[in-house]
Amino acid sequence: MNRKMVIKTTGMLLTVEACLLLLPLAVALYYRERCFYAILITIGISALLGGGAMLWGRNASKTIYSREGFVITALSWFLLSAVGALPFRISGEIPSYVDAFFETVSGFTTTGASILNDVEAMSRGLLFWRSFTHWVGGMGVLVFLMAMTKNISDRSIHIMRAEMPGPIVDKITPRTRDTAKIFYAIYIALTFVEVALLLCGGMPLYEALVHAFGTAGTGGFGILRDSIASYSPYLQWVIGVFMLVFGVNFNLYYLILIKRFKSVLKSGELWTYLGFAAASTGLIAFNIRSFYPSVSEAIRTAFFQVSSIMTTTGYATADFDTWPTLSKTTLLLLMFIGACAGSTGGGIKVSRVMIYVKSIHRELRKLLRPRAVNVIRLEGKMVDENVVRGQNAYLAVYALSFCLFFFLLSFDRFDVETNLSAAAACFNNIGPGFAAVGPTHSYAGYSALSKLVLSAAMLMGRLEIFPILLMITPSTWRNRNR
Amino acid sequence: MNRKMVIKTTGMLLTVEACLLLLPLAVALYYRERCFYAILITIGISALLGGGAMLWGRNASKTIYSREGFVITALSWFLLSAVGALPFRISGEIPSYVDAFFETVSGFTTTGASILNDVEAMSRGLLFWRSFTHWVGGMGVLVFLMAMTKNISDRSIHIMRAEMPGPIVDKITPRTRDTAKIFYAIYIALTFVEVALLLCGGMPLYEALVHAFGTAGTGGFGILRDSIASYSPYLQWVIGVFMLVFGVNFNLYYLILIKRFKSVLKSGELWTYLGFAAASTGLIAFNIRSFYPSVSEAIRTAFFQVSSIMTTTGYATADFDTWPTLSKTTLLLLMFIGACAGSTGGGIKVSRVMIYVKSIHRELRKLLRPRAVNVIRLEGKMVDENVVRGQNAYLAVYALSFCLFFFLLSFDRFDVETNLSAAAACFNNIGPGFAAVGPTHSYAGYSALSKLVLSAAMLMGRLEIFPILLMITPSTWRNRNR
Repeated sequence: MNRKMVIKTTGMLLTVEACLLLLPLAVALYYRERCFYAILITIGISALLGGGAMLWGRNASKTIYSREGFVITALSWFLLSAVGALPFRISGEIPSYVDAFFETVSGFTTTGASILNDVEAMSRGLLFWRSFTHWVGGMGVLVFLMAMTKNISDRSIHIMRAEMPGPIVDKITPRTRDTAKIFYAIYIALTFVEVALLLCGGMPLYEALVHAFGTAGTGGFGILRDSIASYSPYLQWVIGVFMLVFGVNFNLYYLILIKRFKSVLKSGELWTYLGFAAASTGLIAFNIRSFYPSVSEAIRTAFFQVSSIMTTTGYATADFDTWPTLSKTTLLLLMFIGACAGSTGGGIKVSRVMIYVKSIHRELRKLLRPRAVNVIRLEGKMVDENVVRGQNAYLAVYALSFCLFFFLLSFDRFDVETNLSAAAACFNNIGPGFAAVGPTHSYAGYSALSKLVLSAAMLMGRLEIFPILLMITPSTWRNRNR
Repeated sequence: MNRKMVIKTTGMLLTVEACLLLLPLAVALYYRERCFYAILITIGISALLGGGAMLWGRNASKTIYSREGFVITALSWFLLSAVGALPFRISGEIPSYVDAFFETVSGFTTTGASILNDVEAMSRGLLFWRSFTHWVGGMGVLVFLMAMTKNISDRSIHIMRAEMPGPIVDKITPRTRDTAKIFYAIYIALTFVEVALLLCGGMPLYEALVHAFGTAGTGGFGILRDSIASYSPYLQWVIGVFMLVFGVNFNLYYLILIKRFKSVLKSGELWTYLGFAAASTGLIAFNIRSFYPSVSEAIRTAFFQVSSIMTTTGYATADFDTWPTLSKTTLLLLMFIGACAGSTGGGIKVSRVMIYVKSIHRELRKLLRPRAVNVIRLEGKMVDENVVRGQNAYLAVYALSFCLFFFLLSFDRFDVETNLSAAAACFNNIGPGFAAVGPTHSYAGYSALSKLVLSAAMLMGRLEIFPILLMITPSTWRNRNR
């Protein structure tokens, strides 16, 4: 384990966080809010810690392997949240540090689960920071670091693999740094387009920025008690469509940029993803038709909720907890499928589900013809057997982790449905669940211990479990004998 | 596909069913009940159908491969239930054929889910048949056929593999028929011991037989409205312990017979199974302590429910639907783990869970040392990579099937918790779930369509999915070109 490199990189990341905090600082200054000082103090702490760590690890060897990639990622995300929670606590707007930590983890992991019972009582500066964490966490803060600085390591692909969601992460350009730059450029451009469209619909700039951050990161933090419900149909459509847009594999946008349209149209993951969204929208719209005055409103409401849950954003224009069982069950299942790999969305990911279905097909073929050779193909390419094996192990660890979170929550005071949906909504980085954690409620009622369990669930969900497991495995930290 | 052999074997099975029906016929005669005629008619139908099929396939080639093994198993179980349901329908004691089919599938698959709102109104002859299906289905009716007749094929191991639960099914003796005989001998002996112990506790012979059948098959059909609750603590302990006994891998009993005690004591699956049972009993007893007058009663009640749910039997001495969330969640998770492989219990099986945990460990090791060679070991033996791959595909198909059943039930009129626990309780062959399908309720409220969905879930759960999938895959039925 190249510990110095790990410390140096996490140090760099904390200084990046100090820089990122300048934005909410400016917002607080503009609105002349008291949270200005809390943010300023945090910037100081963050810069100091980061600078110290960089100094400590200044002569680190640049060589890293996949284990360092995983540990850097897990540790960075933990520290980023621990420090990012300080402004909420210091300002006193969230009196408990555990609550502030939960809220910040929820932000960076783009979950959007909140312990705030009255979001409208918060200062604009901190609400801005809260939503901005979505934007930073969506594409990945280490990917951002790679795009910004000169290559922190010639093997930084290991970090990218650990941070980017999905079964297969490949550089679209020979250099990791260029790949990171392209992804962020697309990300920024799409965010700008959404802000512009929201401004066109009459949304004030501040609100447009906050909601674009929440949409782009597929996070779901809003600034109003009723989430998106009080905005105009036009604004709801813009946010609804853009959630879906940010749930698409960013590789496809790159393919569009380099004019390889055919490859985009042949993407099995894209069509499966859109197919799920369309089918679920149709089914739910039909199911909730009688709740709404017109067909178009039923479709808009169904589409928004499907898009929000499937991309694991968590914005709401309706209290779907009051919907019929069929609609609730559909949404619950969509929570697990999630968005496309290589997007800002969470969940199991559409391409993983596709690999699982193909594994089942293969097993059936093997049972019929035991000696036949069968490979699994995805997007026209053969999937390496190591990847298939890894994805199968992922399903196992995903299922076991989910059961563990669900079990640990049962020590708290809520019922089975609440705990089940809370575990699903946090682990898949969605936000609202059903019953006591439904769209009109918050996670405030859980104990501090349960909030830490849910924070772990959010981090493990966002980083796809293995980085966190490796970080807490003692043998990871031993020096390799090579 | 050797179709003639498939037809011949299923024909043999129907004649076996005709013979099995002689037992409830005798019971009906003894109690002079009207259901006698319904059973007699069914025996005629069963013998006629079976004899015809055997005549048709009399000159079948004996050669079968794994595909024939799967299809014979799936088809046999379906036909067995379809014919076994007739006495309920013909006698009019269950007026709807779909209900009768559900009840019989529930019997043979050892689920124990019932559509009867008042079991005490049924005739003794039919209640005997209902419980006897548990006993027959527990060890497997094809295994019974193999034990009874001269080898129906020299490759009948393929049938045994398809019918016996668990990831790895091996003959404990060179000849499949001897293995089948040994398993049934142990099964009958253990059933006798239980009957004797129940008689010692003052239970009448009829009730002792019915409950021993329900325990041995880990089924759970009883004859009283309150299941086992009104029996004495001694009888509850006997049934509780024997459920656990029948959830153990029968290979271990064979090892005891041939005095290889060390191998038994070294069985990782056994200790994991007992460990889960002990830990869950302790946790639940602590959690429900205040509901019961004494510690011993809390422990007895907790142990009985844990043993019942974990072995997927489904007997109850308490309405666990009214227990606190922690206890309910523990039981819900135990539903999925299930009993040991090679037992009469259902669920995912302890040894499969162990393989999954080991796959996760291996993946972590692979991430740390990509070039290291890692094999998975179970009970001291290396697990073949093909088996690991197959088990991983099983987890995927298990998860997807479960989601499908849960989704299909959501078209019915019940809430999320009811549907979730109904799908879990039927797919894992347990019986009672929570809420509207809790221990004090029945499945009568579901629509005919939902009952068919749940019947499919029970069959797929008992036969571990792949046989059913292969049966409905068209290419299975094509003639192989070899």
